[in-house]
Amino acid sequence: MDSMGERLVFTSFGESHGEGIGGVLSGLPAGLKIDMEFLEAEVARRKGGSKFATPRKEEDSFKILSGVFEGVSTGAALGFFVPNENTKSKDYSEIKDIFRPAHADFTYFKKYGLRDYKGGGRASARESVARVLAGGFAKLLLREFDIEVHAGVMSIEKIGLDYKDFDKEAFLKAKESEVFALDTSLESSMKEIVLEAKREGDSLGASVLIKAFNIPVGLGEPMYHKLDSMLASSLMGLNGVKAVEIGLGTKASQTRGSINNDFLYKDGFKTNNSGGILGGISNGDTLVLKAHFKPTPSIFLEQASLNTSGDEVNFKLKGRHDPCIGIRGSVVCESLVALVLADALLLNATSKLDSLKKIYK
Amino acid sequence: MDSMGERLVFTSFGESHGEGIGGVLSGLPAGLKIDMEFLEAEVARRKGGSKFATPRKEEDSFKILSGVFEGVSTGAALGFFVPNENTKSKDYSEIKDIFRPAHADFTYFKKYGLRDYKGGGRASARESVARVLAGGFAKLLLREFDIEVHAGVMSIEKIGLDYKDFDKEAFLKAKESEVFALDTSLESSMKEIVLEAKREGDSLGASVLIKAFNIPVGLGEPMYHKLDSMLASSLMGLNGVKAVEIGLGTKASQTRGSINNDFLYKDGFKTNNSGGILGGISNGDTLVLKAHFKPTPSIFLEQASLNTSGDEVNFKLKGRHDPCIGIRGSVVCESLVALVLADALLLNATSKLDSLKKIYK
Amino acid sequence: MDSMGERLVFTSFGESHGEGIGGVLSGLPAGLKIDMEFLEAEVARRKGGSKFATPRKEEDSFKILSGVFEGVSTGAALGFFVPNENTKSKDYSEIKDIFRPAHADFTYFKKYGLRDYKGGGRASARESVARVLAGGFAKLLLREFDIEVHAGVMSIEKIGLDYKDFDKEAFLKAKESEVFALDTSLESSMKEIVLEAKREGDSLGASVLIKAFNIPVGLGEPMYHKLDSMLASSLMGLNGVKAVEIGLGTKASQTRGSINNDFLYKDGFKTNNSGGILGGISNGDTLVLKAHFKPTPSIFLEQASLNTSGDEVNFKLKGRHDPCIGIRGSVVCESLVALVLADALLLNATSKLDSLKKIYK
Amino acid sequence: MDSMGERLVFTSFGESHGEGIGGVLSGLPAGLKIDMEFLEAEVARRKGGSKFATPRKEEDSFKILSGVFEGVSTGAALGFFVPNENTKSKDYSEIKDIFRPAHADFTYFKKYGLRDYKGGGRASARESVARVLAGGFAKLLLREFDIEVHAGVMSIEKIGLDYKDFDKEAFLKAKESEVFALDTSLESSMKEIVLEAKREGDSLGASVLIKAFNIPVGLGEPMYHKLDSMLASSLMGLNGVKAVEIGLGTKASQTRGSINNDFLYKDGFKTNNSGGILGGISNGDTLVLKAHFKPTPSIFLEQASLNTSGDEVNFKLKGRHDPCIGIRGSVVCESLVALVLADALLLNATSKLDSLKKIYK
Repeated sequence: MDSMGERLVFTSFGESHGEGIGGVLSGLPAGLKIDMEFLEAEVARRKGGSKFATPRKEEDSFKILSGVFEGVSTGAALGFFVPNENTKSKDYSEIKDIFRPAHADFTYFKKYGLRDYKGGGRASARESVARVLAGGFAKLLLREFDIEVHAGVMSIEKIGLDYKDFDKEAFLKAKESEVFALDTSLESSMKEIVLEAKREGDSLGASVLIKAFNIPVGLGEPMYHKLDSMLASSLMGLNGVKAVEIGLGTKASQTRGSINNDFLYKDGFKTNNSGGILGGISNGDTLVLKAHFKPTPSIFLEQASLNTSGDEVNFKLKGRHDPCIGIRGSVVCESLVALVLADALLLNATSKLDSLKKIYK
Repeated sequence: MDSMGERLVFTSFGESHGEGIGGVLSGLPAGLKIDMEFLEAEVARRKGGSKFATPRKEEDSFKILSGVFEGVSTGAALGFFVPNENTKSKDYSEIKDIFRPAHADFTYFKKYGLRDYKGGGRASARESVARVLAGGFAKLLLREFDIEVHAGVMSIEKIGLDYKDFDKEAFLKAKESEVFALDTSLESSMKEIVLEAKREGDSLGASVLIKAFNIPVGLGEPMYHKLDSMLASSLMGLNGVKAVEIGLGTKASQTRGSINNDFLYKDGFKTNNSGGILGGISNGDTLVLKAHFKPTPSIFLEQASLNTSGDEVNFKLKGRHDPCIGIRGSVVCESLVALVLADALLLNATSKLDSLKKIYK
Repeated sequence: MDSMGERLVFTSFGESHGEGIGGVLSGLPAGLKIDMEFLEAEVARRKGGSKFATPRKEEDSFKILSGVFEGVSTGAALGFFVPNENTKSKDYSEIKDIFRPAHADFTYFKKYGLRDYKGGGRASARESVARVLAGGFAKLLLREFDIEVHAGVMSIEKIGLDYKDFDKEAFLKAKESEVFALDTSLESSMKEIVLEAKREGDSLGASVLIKAFNIPVGLGEPMYHKLDSMLASSLMGLNGVKAVEIGLGTKASQTRGSINNDFLYKDGFKTNNSGGILGGISNGDTLVLKAHFKPTPSIFLEQASLNTSGDEVNFKLKGRHDPCIGIRGSVVCESLVALVLADALLLNATSKLDSLKKIYK
Repeated sequence: MDSMGERLVFTSFGESHGEGIGGVLSGLPAGLKIDMEFLEAEVARRKGGSKFATPRKEEDSFKILSGVFEGVSTGAALGFFVPNENTKSKDYSEIKDIFRPAHADFTYFKKYGLRDYKGGGRASARESVARVLAGGFAKLLLREFDIEVHAGVMSIEKIGLDYKDFDKEAFLKAKESEVFALDTSLESSMKEIVLEAKREGDSLGASVLIKAFNIPVGLGEPMYHKLDSMLASSLMGLNGVKAVEIGLGTKASQTRGSINNDFLYKDGFKTNNSGGILGGISNGDTLVLKAHFKPTPSIFLEQASLNTSGDEVNFKLKGRHDPCIGIRGSVVCESLVALVLADALLLNATSKLDSLKKIYK
């Protein structure tokens, strides 16, 4: 079950310390110009290497293997591959028999009867490079319809909990920040806390805000592929995400209909508590989503767990890890939302007879 | 896209004021005793009629149309149907041209070029009776493996915001409460606030806690049908749900790895911040989920919107509606989680060669 | 796995002697006028009752349960149901423990551990009424694009083996024939042989020709949902079909490229050996398919088999059966091809960026 | 739509003259030993190079990119890649604007608005190397259950039309033949006719027989993923296949129930007209399938067609092609049947409650 999407189907493969990470994007319409510079920039945004991320330097130079001919998508399966480099597998020999807490070690071992212990194998966040690349293609498609998706870091641990709204400008600025901070006034304290946690061998949770602009009305397929359902599925399926909110989100449960209902006027919705989705279908307003990341499970303090023989062990991890996965995770959120929106755009193409007639007549 | 699930595939059909609501459950293993009393009780729990729900009395006497032979599932598609009764369609003639705020009216009309305006048509919460019935069959399957799913109301508007933990006993008690209150000490104030909102023609949001007990390790299929991903998809796809949390949920973003990581000992996990899922796979601990419902969009106060001709209108709704959809919604959450777990149980059956050998050798 | 189709998804349920046969059609575009007379005529064509079919009189008065509002499709799941009538279940008590040869009795029993022995249960050809009805909706959609699908009986046992080509007129005439004979000069001998076999308690195989006219170029999705692949899947999945041919079919294997290759001129293809499909994609020429049906497995001569206890038994069937399932089967072939073509029409809608732009811009 | 299979999902990508051909196999159970020698032998069997196949020498040295750890499948997506070598793209510059008859050129161009003209791009038979490799993994799984699939060439053009039955020995011998001839007495005349057609610049059709031995009862999922339906879909989706038969196949339509029905005794079925499938489910008898291939579309005689500007043109192809695609195609048929059977094995694992209990209890 290594695929997501219905018409734009993205399949990924690859492990943290194997040959590399790859993907196949199926269903991308033919005739789309493939902007390599843009794709490279997307992958670069996710890349580690700064002091706020893992020191593992991933070159992440990807190769398109199929589906593009003379710079344009052909409609055929688009394969790509990102070779792994800079893999220090020996980092992992010490923990090959230990189930690292909050990691997938224990569950993979029990589910499959064995596990690729090197760097988390398939469960590694490294896999997300395929999501970002696939999301890049999705964005190229969305761009043709002037749809934009942006994500940024709203809060890290307890910094930034007072929710403020952010406009497109803020998102563009956040992309310049090393911690993708949406609130520039909090950026330096965010950085400080990350470095402090890193020094302590600890890690931090973070929350990410994602917005999508200029969405056409009609995206999302009732009853079981509603836009909110597909978005929640994609975001909650990302390593470390433990909560997803749309529009008012959790706060919607604390309010009244008279306050929550977004009135509709000729020039649009007065408020956007719905987060741009009504009945599982985009209403044309800005899409507003939040994804909440747990702290990186890899910490460098003493921890207790079991080993594969069932003995209790105390141990300390070594290795290279992001002190706050939410930071780089925000880039992946953006990609996932782009993938879902592109898929929804394709799915909605046949919602009414009139649309079909525009194509075939 | 009227289906959910991969191996246990549930398809639904039907509108609020049409002939009725039906469903097809495909992939249910053969040989399962169909306990009709249990199914009737499940449907009854969701049913309206109390003063805390819609006064529309739905008889909800369902009929199994196929897939059961001499009281046992045959492995064939299991069809069922719940006829609509007590439909007052004339209630809706006044609003046939108005897009009710926070409803799916606007988006359905734009997406499909027309809409069944009677009671929300396909977008009505009435469709959830099929989810509850399908979930009932799923529970019968889970019961064979001693797996139990329970849901209850944690908070209504601002009552119950201080999160307390609840054990299985509390859930069983909550089922006796007319507002499914998990905290019995809050039940009466919850009831009061619901009736007050009802009197005022307003509505209230609510939050629901769902737990599943005795889950085997190994449920959930990486990378894109992880257990958390499937659960989030199903819950966020339910009318009115605007946020889904797993384990610590949003709070996970505000903590540190040293606090969040659940240590594993011989007798199990010391804490359950993960909510029973690691790497998208169940870890054997109790599954903990929260779903946050917005207030019922149907309120009886003056509202502003557009009509289908694009004119701005002020209007007041009539009709029969739940003042707080989260209450009855909690029953549907339980059903959806049961459906996802049953599907995951089937999907996991082929995770390793050894499992296959147990079957075929 | 009770569904077929990718964007136009058809799900069926129901058994021969249960409550009835039903279906759900999901993905039908909104705005399609539902011509009830046409649908009734389709179902009537498949119905038994003539001396060339089963004497079981099926009323087959179906009910649309959802998805249609004021005579037009809404884009929501379209549910329908055909109640069973005239079920003589006691016909089956004698064979409840016997595996009828060439039937699904043995395999269902082994696969599921039990079986609904009444009239074949889920495996009964009766299920095909749902396929015909679903195909009727598909035809209504195809009609909007002037696409027509027709089927007729080419041969019965050894009558009609010399393949002749038939034009649209011949197909329309065949629909008037009680045995759907394409070659009117063979109709009476076909009828004779069927009645003779019936008198003898035996049954006959038959071959069906299906053509689809006015197909746009471009239907079919490489690599694994090619048009020929989807058509073969749907036809071979029909009870009794043991071979499927496209274009020259089996004869293609006996020829040379210099003969087989269809040359293309300004006014179209010179020949149509391909049967209208190149590379799995429709080429705009007439679609030509053949489906070969085995003789009805239910015969009234003494047969040998095992019972559920594993004993060898000799027995004679009673009951009501078609002496030649290929006759009524031809109607179902037509419906299945219509379903596949409608699905392919939807799938192809997003093959190129230009098509998407026609819809969204 | 670049995937096939439901639980064992195979996705492919790649074009004839691009970087290479790759695939992802998802759902392969963990714990399966990956026998590299066997896989290499499978790929070698399909490889060109003999005088009866294309002179294009494909090295076909593949690389497993993921999903295998220490020689054993991990349950994670299994990615692989076969780089293209020996691509003479300039062979194609002359025909870049011409729609080669019986090729996918015309339909790809019309469907997608452009095409990768080099060697047929995605439509090339070269893609089948991924099918063979994926089929190799499937065979490794089937081997654990002693299931074997074999294919051989039954007839080429008009040689071998008198159908004889062949046992497992004959299939094993056929693998030694350069034309995979099942009937050793026809091998030399088959070779002659192929070389003759090659000299003349022409090509030949061929028919392939496929058998699978030791199949458990119960494979195949009614109603729309029956074993015959899935097999027909996979075979008809292979380049050049124009007809698929199961058991008696087309001949079943020419017979009577009294002859066709396979009687069942304690020691098995007396005859196997059904080809091992009843009601879409395997009955434990040998699976018997035929696939009929058209002649290779690439011939070196003068042909007529259109160019992309719509002008009529006469031209002669150059390049390297198999004179008879059915020969190498037989290897791919074997692989596809293995993939379908392995998928069916997984799908059937949850057909009854008892099977599930064997796994979870």
